[in-house]
Amino acid sequence: MTVYDHLWSTEETRALLDDRARTGSWLEIIAALATAQAELGLIPEAAARDIAAHARIEDLDLEAVAEQTRATGHSTLGLIRVLQRELGPEGRAWVYHGATVQDVSDTWTGLVMQRLLAIARRDLAEIERSLRELAQRHRGTVMLGRTHGQPGLPITFGFKAAVWAAEVSRHRQRVEQAEPRLAVGQLAGAVGTQSAWGEHGPELERRVMARLDLGVPDTPWLTARDRIAEFMTLLALITGTLAKIGNEVYNLQRAEIAEVSEAPSPGVVGSITMPQKRNPERSEHLGTLARLVRAAAGLALEGLVVEHERDGTPWKAEWDFLPRACAASAVALALGGELVAGLRVDGERMRANLEAQRGYVLAEPVMVALAAHVGKARAHELVHAAALRGQQQGLSLREALAAEPAIAEHLDLDDVLRVERALGAVDALIDRALEP
Amino acid sequence: MTVYDHLWSTEETRALLDDRARTGSWLEIIAALATAQAELGLIPEAAARDIAAHARIEDLDLEAVAEQTRATGHSTLGLIRVLQRELGPEGRAWVYHGATVQDVSDTWTGLVMQRLLAIARRDLAEIERSLRELAQRHRGTVMLGRTHGQPGLPITFGFKAAVWAAEVSRHRQRVEQAEPRLAVGQLAGAVGTQSAWGEHGPELERRVMARLDLGVPDTPWLTARDRIAEFMTLLALITGTLAKIGNEVYNLQRAEIAEVSEAPSPGVVGSITMPQKRNPERSEHLGTLARLVRAAAGLALEGLVVEHERDGTPWKAEWDFLPRACAASAVALALGGELVAGLRVDGERMRANLEAQRGYVLAEPVMVALAAHVGKARAHELVHAAALRGQQQGLSLREALAAEPAIAEHLDLDDVLRVERALGAVDALIDRALEP
Amino acid sequence: MTVYDHLWSTEETRALLDDRARTGSWLEIIAALATAQAELGLIPEAAARDIAAHARIEDLDLEAVAEQTRATGHSTLGLIRVLQRELGPEGRAWVYHGATVQDVSDTWTGLVMQRLLAIARRDLAEIERSLRELAQRHRGTVMLGRTHGQPGLPITFGFKAAVWAAEVSRHRQRVEQAEPRLAVGQLAGAVGTQSAWGEHGPELERRVMARLDLGVPDTPWLTARDRIAEFMTLLALITGTLAKIGNEVYNLQRAEIAEVSEAPSPGVVGSITMPQKRNPERSEHLGTLARLVRAAAGLALEGLVVEHERDGTPWKAEWDFLPRACAASAVALALGGELVAGLRVDGERMRANLEAQRGYVLAEPVMVALAAHVGKARAHELVHAAALRGQQQGLSLREALAAEPAIAEHLDLDDVLRVERALGAVDALIDRALEP
Amino acid sequence: MTVYDHLWSTEETRALLDDRARTGSWLEIIAALATAQAELGLIPEAAARDIAAHARIEDLDLEAVAEQTRATGHSTLGLIRVLQRELGPEGRAWVYHGATVQDVSDTWTGLVMQRLLAIARRDLAEIERSLRELAQRHRGTVMLGRTHGQPGLPITFGFKAAVWAAEVSRHRQRVEQAEPRLAVGQLAGAVGTQSAWGEHGPELERRVMARLDLGVPDTPWLTARDRIAEFMTLLALITGTLAKIGNEVYNLQRAEIAEVSEAPSPGVVGSITMPQKRNPERSEHLGTLARLVRAAAGLALEGLVVEHERDGTPWKAEWDFLPRACAASAVALALGGELVAGLRVDGERMRANLEAQRGYVLAEPVMVALAAHVGKARAHELVHAAALRGQQQGLSLREALAAEPAIAEHLDLDDVLRVERALGAVDALIDRALEP
Repeated sequence: MTVYDHLWSTEETRALLDDRARTGSWLEIIAALATAQAELGLIPEAAARDIAAHARIEDLDLEAVAEQTRATGHSTLGLIRVLQRELGPEGRAWVYHGATVQDVSDTWTGLVMQRLLAIARRDLAEIERSLRELAQRHRGTVMLGRTHGQPGLPITFGFKAAVWAAEVSRHRQRVEQAEPRLAVGQLAGAVGTQSAWGEHGPELERRVMARLDLGVPDTPWLTARDRIAEFMTLLALITGTLAKIGNEVYNLQRAEIAEVSEAPSPGVVGSITMPQKRNPERSEHLGTLARLVRAAAGLALEGLVVEHERDGTPWKAEWDFLPRACAASAVALALGGELVAGLRVDGERMRANLEAQRGYVLAEPVMVALAAHVGKARAHELVHAAALRGQQQGLSLREALAAEPAIAEHLDLDDVLRVERALGAVDALIDRALEP
Repeated sequence: MTVYDHLWSTEETRALLDDRARTGSWLEIIAALATAQAELGLIPEAAARDIAAHARIEDLDLEAVAEQTRATGHSTLGLIRVLQRELGPEGRAWVYHGATVQDVSDTWTGLVMQRLLAIARRDLAEIERSLRELAQRHRGTVMLGRTHGQPGLPITFGFKAAVWAAEVSRHRQRVEQAEPRLAVGQLAGAVGTQSAWGEHGPELERRVMARLDLGVPDTPWLTARDRIAEFMTLLALITGTLAKIGNEVYNLQRAEIAEVSEAPSPGVVGSITMPQKRNPERSEHLGTLARLVRAAAGLALEGLVVEHERDGTPWKAEWDFLPRACAASAVALALGGELVAGLRVDGERMRANLEAQRGYVLAEPVMVALAAHVGKARAHELVHAAALRGQQQGLSLREALAAEPAIAEHLDLDDVLRVERALGAVDALIDRALEP
Repeated sequence: MTVYDHLWSTEETRALLDDRARTGSWLEIIAALATAQAELGLIPEAAARDIAAHARIEDLDLEAVAEQTRATGHSTLGLIRVLQRELGPEGRAWVYHGATVQDVSDTWTGLVMQRLLAIARRDLAEIERSLRELAQRHRGTVMLGRTHGQPGLPITFGFKAAVWAAEVSRHRQRVEQAEPRLAVGQLAGAVGTQSAWGEHGPELERRVMARLDLGVPDTPWLTARDRIAEFMTLLALITGTLAKIGNEVYNLQRAEIAEVSEAPSPGVVGSITMPQKRNPERSEHLGTLARLVRAAAGLALEGLVVEHERDGTPWKAEWDFLPRACAASAVALALGGELVAGLRVDGERMRANLEAQRGYVLAEPVMVALAAHVGKARAHELVHAAALRGQQQGLSLREALAAEPAIAEHLDLDDVLRVERALGAVDALIDRALEP
Repeated sequence: MTVYDHLWSTEETRALLDDRARTGSWLEIIAALATAQAELGLIPEAAARDIAAHARIEDLDLEAVAEQTRATGHSTLGLIRVLQRELGPEGRAWVYHGATVQDVSDTWTGLVMQRLLAIARRDLAEIERSLRELAQRHRGTVMLGRTHGQPGLPITFGFKAAVWAAEVSRHRQRVEQAEPRLAVGQLAGAVGTQSAWGEHGPELERRVMARLDLGVPDTPWLTARDRIAEFMTLLALITGTLAKIGNEVYNLQRAEIAEVSEAPSPGVVGSITMPQKRNPERSEHLGTLARLVRAAAGLALEGLVVEHERDGTPWKAEWDFLPRACAASAVALALGGELVAGLRVDGERMRANLEAQRGYVLAEPVMVALAAHVGKARAHELVHAAALRGQQQGLSLREALAAEPAIAEHLDLDDVLRVERALGAVDALIDRALEP
């Protein structure tokens, strides 16, 4: 493991995606293929037994595979040749019979997608749980709603968390709907027709996939990469949402705002030049990871345009971007989980920041209340003018309104300037968002 | 309509998206809002009647709206002011009460997504129908399968069409699953809490959406743009597949291949300098359109990171990319439909191109047949060597194999070199792909 | 002009890029071609005179051009046919002799790039002037430097402006270096060989470009689109920098920070629901525009992969993205100019925000001063511990340091805690950045 | 080295960019810093000597660095701590005094950019040399020019190569102009002001950069990332051109065209299922690599929007994409060099493919010749009609023209149908492109 691998991958994804893991998984597919081929009489049983016994990553010289891969310029021949060294004559003769690189690599990709979706399902559920809890706990924690970076009207922090929870919940639904489409393997042969196995092809494919706990695809997808593109855009959607939450925490953690903050991590040093620093590390990194995944999703969408019966240009790009994006997404899910589970919410500071606006963020409810008396258009004019005047003269909104008889005569200012009055349907909206 | 508008939009999408159409739709939303507000006692009934009667694009001075929009620097105030000119005092006072720009613009976006998904559903169904017909008709039309741009093994054109049909069918499923998530509007108010309407907010929203035949969202989505991102990636998936089909036709229509060709369009001139030219215009343009939609999808994914309770930077980008991408996607769907419905398939040329390979694309079946006698590894060696030798000496594969006793003694060359023998499970795979 | 055109284009770019402008410019190219062809004896002089006299946008029925363009499915034949209606028999016979669509469209693109680079040069110069002035004026206006969104060490606002100015200055250099490569036209004929004009081709091209004040390219660039890609990435670089400045203003204008603000625009209404709002409209929109231009730059880079001697897929994409990106960039340059020219800087608030940090942002200079006595590593430990303790106990940094004899015995706290002492080489760095 | 590293990196770039190489280079920067600090009296000379003596990758426990990096969550503290184990008390106390992560990482990035530009300069020069040679050798090798994938007019292969050479030459010019802007390091300190070194900052920076043979930047660029974006777009431009050449070879190598082919690589196996295959491996992979670099360039352009005085989100993305893009670009340059140096050109097949068009690609020169007699418009009509008729009747163009008296009476068909007559100014254009 290199110095910065932990920034870009989790232990779980390294154990799924690194050289050894991928090769080990390919060997399992090769063994499953041989076993099923023997069952159907396509290769001798002894060959299958030999292959199944030796197609094990533990016995494999990975350096030799790498060296043979470079020597042959072929993506699986290196592996086959090194594996053959372990095999007896029958196994050697029949290993990987009729299959192509993409059979093993696409089936592995199917396994990877299946695993990643399981990780996503698990982590998104955990994140949603944390967010729902924040929504309930801070249902009444009033804070500034901000639009265009400026104070708008009050909201509650629970409302913000509920909106996040609903977005995460929609992602869970998307993952669930996509899973059966994506978690499939493939045995296609050279051009998709399962040419080497004659009429046995479909049954062979069914048996191999059953052994691997993978779905059987509706058609060969050698050059139908919509699954890859859907998977990658799904990861981009999920990590994009996590980056949004991270960005919000980053901004609300600013010293000048200080309404929420990341839980400090034991042992972590913020800065070597500035000893006082505590940085929103997770939040920032969520932004980085989402960008990487999004760029990869763009490549996957470009890769929809595949030519003929195999096309190396988009396909080999997948070799690069898909594992990286899986790894980065897993980091984002883990960081996102930590972030929301440990989030510190400072309700007092929230109210203080709200009050520092001296009432001006309550201009809308005042206007609405006034509209009942003078109509909305006139109310807007009056309140707008009073607000401007008040701001120029350094008054609070209450003072500014009181100074304008055309407003003050209609309203009980104490009542209309209560923050709670400005929260609209916030409670009902939280309930609606958190409906199971 | 400008000189090249037909390249980037269809009549249907212009009638949905152009200035007049959008403004007209916004007026309908404004009218629905007023009517529902009156029902709930939020504004006077007379005001609602006045607004509903005059919020009609036919009566609106669009130039004046444009001018007022520039003058106020506000996205809806121009429209409101010009509309107010038509209204009596009550309507004037209560129009657009408590709503923000995003209420009307996001609700309109919901309507646009709903309409586009309906267009996609219709056109994809038609395209799938054409492809299934091609698959059945050309189930036995043998042709070269090509990998890495080089002759591989034989396939049939019906198989290619069936793989396309299955991909289109998956898109139809995606559209269906996404539709209920996407076809929703929104009444959120300034910061998402429906602040101006108090406890009436949720019911008001429900009524307005019912009037517009739109779904009610689970939460306000002012800054939860996963719907937009999902919609845009869906368009990118669909247009990517269409571009793939276009690219395939473009290549198979090359004069040197000439296996398929676009139906000629009456009146169309290929080239003014080269009078003999007939270009694959639709196929090429499908590639162009897919790129534009894909770039837009990237912007939508970037736009997931939205700040606080409204964030102009990603939101205003939607104003630019979403309508364009809808229009371009509709063109792609229309062209894709024309392309596959009119596709000319030259089965004779396909067989001729296959035969021009002098048997070498049948090397795999020979190898498989030989493997039954000498094992796969040895068979690969022997056939590989014979094929190389034959190619160097200008022989056909049959001649090359016949010259090698270690091969010839085991095989009936007439039988193993029949093209049909090399087609694997093509028939069963077509059936599987076309299952309803 | 439609309702929101002003968001995406300037008057200058509409006058360069809209339907009428483009068609007018194409007519000028057609006239220049005819005139030069007559000079070289390639067409009759009378034909050239006729063409030059009538190839005027004022006389052209643009609707008819659009209608004929759709009918022929050809990009220039509609224009040629409508133009021919105005011409006598000789002009009619010889108009656009030997040229293809790309000759006129690429030459126009050359003119557009030339004009845009001129606009960029002019606006960047003006922006740099404003930034240099800000740098000089606020050379000593101390403020918080922020890293990872958290208070770091003090800087001055002049330093920030000087860093911006240097970045803008590098863009001016890039524009200058690129201009001679980009501001070229093309006369290539059908496949790039100037086939219709025989040996006269190069001289004809030279004369046409001279008439248009454009450079002559080193080779035909029908399928060498590096110029387009370079131009687009240059626009993306420039608008990216402007978006950065906008984003900084957006954040520093937050009510909780309030250190700078955009100049208010007369007549502009911030919000119809929240009458008190004043939004950083320009800053936000700079972010939007940069995204659009960046997405277009991605398309241009993709478009480098062009096939054979003409390739409609990437080329037609240029028709969509290049004019839009030019228009958006011009808006960004104009807004950027307004933003920095009118920027309001609140030095008092800057100092207040700095002081609100209670000295903790001066920990580094304390550490450096202490390091002279106890070594850097030990100094870091001591100051880090004192800072943490002080923050936990609610002390200022001065109080926390004074309470730690191992620190206090070595330092004159009044001296080491002067903000000016923490500014490093800020003055020299500003001077270096502003060197002419 | 893992199984597929050779697909994504070269030996040269692994030796520049891998964990060990990067850390080694960081240590050199740390040593240079210490030495220059001692020269200026900022740290004790003994400390500098100690640091310079031990800051060597050979002595470093890289696993321990990785472990400490994870433990501290800080990007350089792990390295510093492990280095300190080797140092005496003075060295330990003063190592990395006043510098931040970005000082060492950006300076390293400057070194990487410098090295990559040198590789690009070298490889592009070699590629241009090969292309110029191809252009000269095949100046008269006639072949089909193709537009929209269809036969257009004849060109020569030398012309195609000359257009490529000119594009590569423009890239060389771009690299040369960018180099002084990009090959700079940075000593900025915590917020860019060189705060820890007082007035010595600029001189310290000058000395460190002189030791490293790097330029001194005009200003700190902690949050001015236009250099990164420019560098990455330059790599995208270069690899885009290489992908274009690769794509052209891929298509011209199609069995049905077979005009050029990649040099076979000794030992390389095309396919294990199809023994006869020889694939355009380099050409395809150039397409893959260009996509990866282009996606990275998009991230770099996004990264222009950096916040305040340090911003982890875009910066950490650079850590991922910049080294990868450098490595991929180096592979592309190497493959591109091999491709053009070894390209096999089959002039006979080129002429055969041209002649297979039966004269129709000479319709333009016929039209031009006829235009001298009947005007261009009438000539277009006549030739267009004759060509269509001929194609329908299965005639050659010569036969079709001979059958139309209104054409035949004006022309010497033997003369106007000579291929060489249709080549326009091809010779002069090659000369112009190859001008030094």
